[in-house]
Amino acid sequence: MPHQAEIIAVGTELLLGNIANTNAQFLSQLLASAGVNVLYHTAVGDNPQRLRQAVEIARGRCDLLVFTGGLGPTYDDMTKETVAGVFGLALEYHPEVMEEIQQYFDRVFHRPMPACNRQQAMLPQGCTVLHNPVGTAPGCMFTAGGVTAVLLPGVPHECRYLTEHAVLPWLRGQSGGVIRSRDLHVFGLTEPQVQELLGDLMDSAQNPSLAPYAKPGEVMLRLTAKGGSDDDCQERMAPLFRDVRSRLGNYLYGVDVSSLEEVVLTRLRQQGLTLSTAESCTGGLIAKRLTDVAGASAAFLGGVVSYTNGVKAGVLGVPRDLLDRYGAVSAPVARAMAEGVRRLTGSDLSVSVTGLAGPDGDDRGNPVGTVYLGLSLPGETLVRRLALGGDRPRIRLLAASSALDIIRRHLCDLPIEQE
Amino acid sequence: MPHQAEIIAVGTELLLGNIANTNAQFLSQLLASAGVNVLYHTAVGDNPQRLRQAVEIARGRCDLLVFTGGLGPTYDDMTKETVAGVFGLALEYHPEVMEEIQQYFDRVFHRPMPACNRQQAMLPQGCTVLHNPVGTAPGCMFTAGGVTAVLLPGVPHECRYLTEHAVLPWLRGQSGGVIRSRDLHVFGLTEPQVQELLGDLMDSAQNPSLAPYAKPGEVMLRLTAKGGSDDDCQERMAPLFRDVRSRLGNYLYGVDVSSLEEVVLTRLRQQGLTLSTAESCTGGLIAKRLTDVAGASAAFLGGVVSYTNGVKAGVLGVPRDLLDRYGAVSAPVARAMAEGVRRLTGSDLSVSVTGLAGPDGDDRGNPVGTVYLGLSLPGETLVRRLALGGDRPRIRLLAASSALDIIRRHLCDLPIEQE
Repeated sequence: MPHQAEIIAVGTELLLGNIANTNAQFLSQLLASAGVNVLYHTAVGDNPQRLRQAVEIARGRCDLLVFTGGLGPTYDDMTKETVAGVFGLALEYHPEVMEEIQQYFDRVFHRPMPACNRQQAMLPQGCTVLHNPVGTAPGCMFTAGGVTAVLLPGVPHECRYLTEHAVLPWLRGQSGGVIRSRDLHVFGLTEPQVQELLGDLMDSAQNPSLAPYAKPGEVMLRLTAKGGSDDDCQERMAPLFRDVRSRLGNYLYGVDVSSLEEVVLTRLRQQGLTLSTAESCTGGLIAKRLTDVAGASAAFLGGVVSYTNGVKAGVLGVPRDLLDRYGAVSAPVARAMAEGVRRLTGSDLSVSVTGLAGPDGDDRGNPVGTVYLGLSLPGETLVRRLALGGDRPRIRLLAASSALDIIRRHLCDLPIEQE
Repeated sequence: MPHQAEIIAVGTELLLGNIANTNAQFLSQLLASAGVNVLYHTAVGDNPQRLRQAVEIARGRCDLLVFTGGLGPTYDDMTKETVAGVFGLALEYHPEVMEEIQQYFDRVFHRPMPACNRQQAMLPQGCTVLHNPVGTAPGCMFTAGGVTAVLLPGVPHECRYLTEHAVLPWLRGQSGGVIRSRDLHVFGLTEPQVQELLGDLMDSAQNPSLAPYAKPGEVMLRLTAKGGSDDDCQERMAPLFRDVRSRLGNYLYGVDVSSLEEVVLTRLRQQGLTLSTAESCTGGLIAKRLTDVAGASAAFLGGVVSYTNGVKAGVLGVPRDLLDRYGAVSAPVARAMAEGVRRLTGSDLSVSVTGLAGPDGDDRGNPVGTVYLGLSLPGETLVRRLALGGDRPRIRLLAASSALDIIRRHLCDLPIEQE
């Protein structure tokens, strides 16, 4: 199997800084999980001559070249022609691919396919087509002169889909053994705090290995083992997994899950409970994240975005005198918001957020980052005060995640720090 | 001045996908704003031999090499030695820099400087020191053989600080002229459609140039001119700007704005109007996007996320018989949701969204992507039906953007397509 990879992203928008090269990041993670060493990332613009030179350099130092971008239908998409050209391959027309693309337009876009999309059915001679059910740009791969070239679309979700469904299975087929990994998701600890807790294991562990991935507002740890079989890998991982889990304690919110919101919704469904939200400074972010998960309506009834005092009082029934006496960013208002939305929607549980996301503090001397969370349950309402750091988007993200985490802690009978 | 740049990020954590190369993104933006063309991004691990080869390649194709990372005090930080070595320069000790680093430890970390940090005061012979008041790693720059090398720390805020405070001022000092650009934001046309409208201009225009950037759910066009002065650039851009604007018509929602939500909020404030939202399939995304904008509360009062029929009826007052007769995804329910939230919040305008984001259609034969928008105004309520393509996140994004766009169209007295 190939062992040394270079990821080559094609697109002038990268060189102008319009987008970050996130494809290179998750491709690196996925290739590492399949036992491939990524030695270089390269980004080059929509320029055939410079791309050609980059391919020449790459095939001289790596045996797996993974390209992203430039598979689209427009004039500046020239990755296929250029890469195939370097390897002395012509492009040929694939009618079955054309058929798929036309069907995608009918099925998904509900409009006829523009003529320019025809060039997406032109692929290098003798390549393996990577059929793309989530977009119009098929990927492809071929091996020539001991070097394998994989061409993937630049649209992140299409790139990820083809990598997971076509490239990784192929790599695993090439490799002698199998590689398995487990993702441990942590909320409530910073990356340095996780380093302190687990640094010795990260440094020492080889197989299985333990690596941290900082994600917005949380930390993800990946445990990876190589072995002769799935069971072998699981056995290798078990002791380290137990050790890491016990060190992380209840900051570990899930293993091999996709998000905190997914964990909360799963717990709610398991316990047959419903949830509603009352959001001020997060402005709908909690509800948005819950409804990112398909099937959320089984447990999430809905909520109120009470961005102004008028809506807090008029819709949620927060008493005017509480707003006047304590201000909108206060424990009593967080409590009344949570109780109000639970009453309004008839949900079993509700969560509320009121705080200062910035740029400015309030006229009562509360600094930016001051946030109150309310969790209303049958019989009681808990309130928690947070002092969050960072800019407006980070404060909103952490406030929303903290609200989801307080629900998780309640559903798992874990301690909840209070005012 | 240097004209062709390569950004070289050094760090194995990039190749493992532990972090995204965000330094390359903002360095690209900042360099472009100073008139430097960035031709390549390269990422390489903490490996002297591979870094040396990367530097050899880069200095053969660019005259400005900007390095980030590997300036720290630990054994695997070897950017300075390696890069200086390729240019035949030794490192020399800078006592004044050592002084600064020790003071930083006293002032910020309140502890004595570890011995290993001494190597941070070793810099290439004859370089310009880029003093770093926001961290311990000083940057540096030198020119040798017609190539300028700039070495910056990998910590993003330190990298950005030195770029803005040292590198850009130097570049602007070098440059002859100025560069100006205008960003035209388009909603309602796909990138291929924009291509068909403007392709001839994109191909022919040189100075000013015209380039498209696909953003999630919309298209952005950047017009860029180089000239002797700001006025000169504006004059060069004017005719092409007028031509592009007239071809885009009312799909052009803003020029040099940050988002559709910002445009809507600005218009609302200018006209002294307030807005509320009633969201079903978008689940809070519209409210979230509006409140991403600081100061949104001047025009956005809040809204209701009515993810279930119970909340549509109980909170928004959608008549049960409408829900039973037409189903939640229907024009009458979109109308009643918009009117309900406007009544509830007392806002001047309100917008509603009800639809099927997928993965499944409904039991009335509505396919995934069916979305109804309601816009309630004093005296009338408009309803629009959309048939959106793509996966769940894309349908939610386009539904939210379409709702924002229908408000914009109303506020600008533009035609609104209706049921």
